[in-house]
Amino acid sequence: MIKAMIVGYGNIGKSVLEALLAAPDFTVLGVVRRNAGGTQPAELADIPVVDDVEKLSEKPDVAFLCTPTRSVPVEAKKYLALGINTVDSFDIHTSIWDLKCELDPVAKKYGKTSIISAGWDPGSDSVVRALLEAAAPKGITYTNFGPGMSMGHTVAVKAIEGVKAALSMTIPLGTGIHRRMVYIELQDGYAYEEVAAKIKADPYFAHDETHVMAVDSVDALLDKGHGVHMERKGVSGATQNQRFQFDMQINNPALTAQILVAVARAGMKQAPGCYTMIELPVIDMLYGEKEDLIKRLV
Amino acid sequence: MIKAMIVGYGNIGKSVLEALLAAPDFTVLGVVRRNAGGTQPAELADIPVVDDVEKLSEKPDVAFLCTPTRSVPVEAKKYLALGINTVDSFDIHTSIWDLKCELDPVAKKYGKTSIISAGWDPGSDSVVRALLEAAAPKGITYTNFGPGMSMGHTVAVKAIEGVKAALSMTIPLGTGIHRRMVYIELQDGYAYEEVAAKIKADPYFAHDETHVMAVDSVDALLDKGHGVHMERKGVSGATQNQRFQFDMQINNPALTAQILVAVARAGMKQAPGCYTMIELPVIDMLYGEKEDLIKRLV
Repeated sequence: MIKAMIVGYGNIGKSVLEALLAAPDFTVLGVVRRNAGGTQPAELADIPVVDDVEKLSEKPDVAFLCTPTRSVPVEAKKYLALGINTVDSFDIHTSIWDLKCELDPVAKKYGKTSIISAGWDPGSDSVVRALLEAAAPKGITYTNFGPGMSMGHTVAVKAIEGVKAALSMTIPLGTGIHRRMVYIELQDGYAYEEVAAKIKADPYFAHDETHVMAVDSVDALLDKGHGVHMERKGVSGATQNQRFQFDMQINNPALTAQILVAVARAGMKQAPGCYTMIELPVIDMLYGEKEDLIKRLV
Repeated sequence: MIKAMIVGYGNIGKSVLEALLAAPDFTVLGVVRRNAGGTQPAELADIPVVDDVEKLSEKPDVAFLCTPTRSVPVEAKKYLALGINTVDSFDIHTSIWDLKCELDPVAKKYGKTSIISAGWDPGSDSVVRALLEAAAPKGITYTNFGPGMSMGHTVAVKAIEGVKAALSMTIPLGTGIHRRMVYIELQDGYAYEEVAAKIKADPYFAHDETHVMAVDSVDALLDKGHGVHMERKGVSGATQNQRFQFDMQINNPALTAQILVAVARAGMKQAPGCYTMIELPVIDMLYGEKEDLIKRLV
């Protein structure tokens, strides 16, 4: 059994617990969170909740970093230095290579693995994008997101003055172009027109078709479903017009968490170092005997 | 540059040559085929065609086995023993594990790699099937083939007495169920009803909805296009109804050949042994610097 620890207990942490409890090869040592002394949700009744890894009964094999993305570099280095593998869903696409370069020597120094940016995008979508490029090296891949809630855009809206609550939905328009449907609750004393103009001028929205709507309750609109439609049209050898599509309609945190569990498993089988998902053999992400997996899936 | 040799020059061999000529990191040493002394097709004018690997100017790094599937075990062992990596598209699903077990010790003995069953199914579809099981471990995956020509079924029809020429098309009906549309030219003196009854009774067709049609020219119907629609509905953690679909509409030999080139590249980067595609990191199949690939695809 692989001994797992969950660091942070938001949407992802909660879903990671569900995925770990459903996995036949993992045992949950506990959850590390700041307010370990506070009241805990019902599903943690039988799970040790501590504010420091040293307070767990045993040393974990792997730490699931379910803290905000920006804290991943610090958290990963901390647990690697304690001799614990890490997995995360770091999702700032432009900084993934830098994160790998930062964590790789640390992981090697302590003889551990760190699997970064594992979720669905970056994550399983990245594996599909890489595979499609192997299948048709020349061509264009479009990744169309949604319909679904964008965490990053929602946080950006919430930071704007006059916004009490917000939800930014991503709507795919094809060829990687997206519409932003922004639902806000206004703070008292703020005018819709001014706040809407500020949102549309924000760098997160300035380049996309953006619609802002004032609503009575953002909470009433919240749904964790999301989707992707990926398409590639390209050339295999000398043959044009090879066409590929990958689609999914999924619960966002549940899929991210399940993929984290899969790569934590793969992390136990790799040489020390830091890896993105496209650097892992997919078979290593699966539970089961190699013979059975190859007979069943190849 | 990776030095490549093509063994066999049918549909796949011809497409492998096209894919190798389009790849920036391969050079083609030559084609090995039985009738090396005969008239060669125009595209081989500048390519050495020999009947034995020893007659090539240099020792190849990798042999592309484009011979019939049943000859793969013998051919692979022969070239591995000569210190040459091999790649093949061995497609008898029920024998893939046995082939791996047979070739793995040979590859290790000679310090080489052998990548087997690399094409689209088995092949890139296998990678997608494995990835979807990582994303939603509980659930059912259906692989629906077509519309497209089935090589195996076509050969089975041609073996039946009274058939002069044949084409068996695979039509997807969903949930992994297929209709077989069989087009035949009858030999003189044979009755359509008797031949059609024999085809429908053949083990290749007995369990599928099969329609047999006599036509004037099978050749006039031939098209190398094919397709796949894969679907999985499953559970991530405790969350039901996660839905995934993978589709492609492709030229069959062109895609198989392109994937063979991709895994030949990956074979240069693995430890000695025999691998299926789900055992390879997808990034190793791609041409380019790791930094650029990760920045662009993850």
